[in-house]
Amino acid sequence: MARIALDAMGGDFAPQATVAGALLALAELDPALSIQLVGRTAVVEAQLRSLLESGEFRAADAHRDRLSIIEAPDVIEMSEKPGAAVRGKPNSSMVLGLRLQTEGKSDAFVSAGSTGAQMAASLMVLRLHAGLKRPAIVTLFPSGRRPVAVLDSGANVDCSAEELVQFARLGATYAECMLGRENPTVGLLSIGEEPEKGNAVTKEAHQLLLRAGLNFVGNVEGRDLPAGGTDAHALDVVVCDGFVGNVILKFYEGVAPLMIETLRKAGVDAIQLQAGLKHLDYSEHGGAPLLGVKGVSIIAHGKSSPRAVKNAIKVAYQAVTSGMNDQIGQRLVLATESAA
Amino acid sequence: MARIALDAMGGDFAPQATVAGALLALAELDPALSIQLVGRTAVVEAQLRSLLESGEFRAADAHRDRLSIIEAPDVIEMSEKPGAAVRGKPNSSMVLGLRLQTEGKSDAFVSAGSTGAQMAASLMVLRLHAGLKRPAIVTLFPSGRRPVAVLDSGANVDCSAEELVQFARLGATYAECMLGRENPTVGLLSIGEEPEKGNAVTKEAHQLLLRAGLNFVGNVEGRDLPAGGTDAHALDVVVCDGFVGNVILKFYEGVAPLMIETLRKAGVDAIQLQAGLKHLDYSEHGGAPLLGVKGVSIIAHGKSSPRAVKNAIKVAYQAVTSGMNDQIGQRLVLATESAA
Repeated sequence: MARIALDAMGGDFAPQATVAGALLALAELDPALSIQLVGRTAVVEAQLRSLLESGEFRAADAHRDRLSIIEAPDVIEMSEKPGAAVRGKPNSSMVLGLRLQTEGKSDAFVSAGSTGAQMAASLMVLRLHAGLKRPAIVTLFPSGRRPVAVLDSGANVDCSAEELVQFARLGATYAECMLGRENPTVGLLSIGEEPEKGNAVTKEAHQLLLRAGLNFVGNVEGRDLPAGGTDAHALDVVVCDGFVGNVILKFYEGVAPLMIETLRKAGVDAIQLQAGLKHLDYSEHGGAPLLGVKGVSIIAHGKSSPRAVKNAIKVAYQAVTSGMNDQIGQRLVLATESAA
Repeated sequence: MARIALDAMGGDFAPQATVAGALLALAELDPALSIQLVGRTAVVEAQLRSLLESGEFRAADAHRDRLSIIEAPDVIEMSEKPGAAVRGKPNSSMVLGLRLQTEGKSDAFVSAGSTGAQMAASLMVLRLHAGLKRPAIVTLFPSGRRPVAVLDSGANVDCSAEELVQFARLGATYAECMLGRENPTVGLLSIGEEPEKGNAVTKEAHQLLLRAGLNFVGNVEGRDLPAGGTDAHALDVVVCDGFVGNVILKFYEGVAPLMIETLRKAGVDAIQLQAGLKHLDYSEHGGAPLLGVKGVSIIAHGKSSPRAVKNAIKVAYQAVTSGMNDQIGQRLVLATESAA
């Protein structure tokens, strides 16, 4: 059983996209999954009614009993300063949705609302595993081979070498639990394969990663991400500073539309293009877990469609059923003990 | 008139690709252009003879008088440490090719050899303009609008805010002289539009750029690069640390093959794909100038084809005829005076 709390008010297309995404999830995913829609009850109920009455979602009525509504009178807007908003709105859908986990009433939280607020609220409510300095957002990059887990993709800037090593541990556990990768390979994003290439933090992190007890395959370069690896290794996890990670994530998001537009102008059939590039589409991959907090907090894109919300719920479901969070806690304890 | 020295020995496919590229340049570019092939005379002559005898280049014989060979007995290999190689091989094609400029015998230098060695040799032989701390490599990124000049794309890691501002000045002059952009827009690569978003250096650079006397349009994000701008501004120049710049440059290089392969598998015609994505192809855009040195030094990709070498020579020719180098010197003097 997995109880997923969904921030019904979060995201550019909420509550339509969030409630519709929840209905898709109930219809398509495991029957052991239940969803808690967190938000303004009247708004959520009206949206739910409207969707259930529409042709597309009428069949979802059969799953109505796996859906509950949790009242949260406040909403954190995208424009608000994360820290202040989280402290000032304890009854927001963001904070209350996360609080359900510490109260034992829920197993995971999903939001397409402000990423900064979700991070701040997750840190405040769920707190970090012992020994961790910072959480990290992990994003799956579609590649020519298997998808590559990239972290940090935006939770942190100006990371230390020790933090990059912690991201590597978090990413390796994620790759095992969520992607089923055995003994996952970990690469360090830099500007050359050689250990002495890179900025000061990267060079230091390289040395620390050599003795971190992970399957570290050395430095990798920008081109190895879309390729999914080097000639020598397929890549499961790539570690970088959240500044670099966020720049390339957004860059990647922007490249596919450019390619599609360019090829469309060159006369390639638009439908064939969309179909061909489907597996490079972010909404297919769903949400990005915030790793390191004692609980499950899944960050969905602000522009999430119902399908993207459904996929983020699926990610939350996998995180719960794989026991990823406990695994992370155990691995961190082991790493701390072996270092001591 | 422009006299371009070409490192005939530099690059993965030298001397075949370099000599062939020189012949293409002579045939296709301005008749006022002459080329100095710098390398081992016997090797270069044999290559030249073989190409001129082949069907493809037979017509190039007519341009033979615009081609000279400058003997350089040594070659710096890709695997050598840049600084040591440059100091230890004063008679390498790299060092002698650059030296022609300080001797008044040449106007520009082009190489597809080791980028690190070319940087080290350019700094040693040509030296930096007064007031500059570091040179920067500028790369043209194909975009949905006009190409965007991105710098630094790999010459520097761990840049200071002041260095980023100098890159902005160099990039703006490049965009005016080489791309014909009037009052070019300059964006600062970060992870959010707001001035307070980004790492410490980026936040500081944002404040300095506001009063640098440039057409600074604020922070831009990864997605604005392939888009060629934001809703508010088309982008001419984007400034970033060389670590980030190099990661996204190589990432970009890797994405196009992934897209092509993905679409080919989905049944899109391969020839249509290649034709459609031609303007996103790096070899169409040629070499990347090393900005900031007192002279012209154009860095071509190690894997340069004859066509890519020809395009790098074209970039060198534009740099010479536009007087970019003098412009950079004058702007830096003006900036220093206005700051004083």
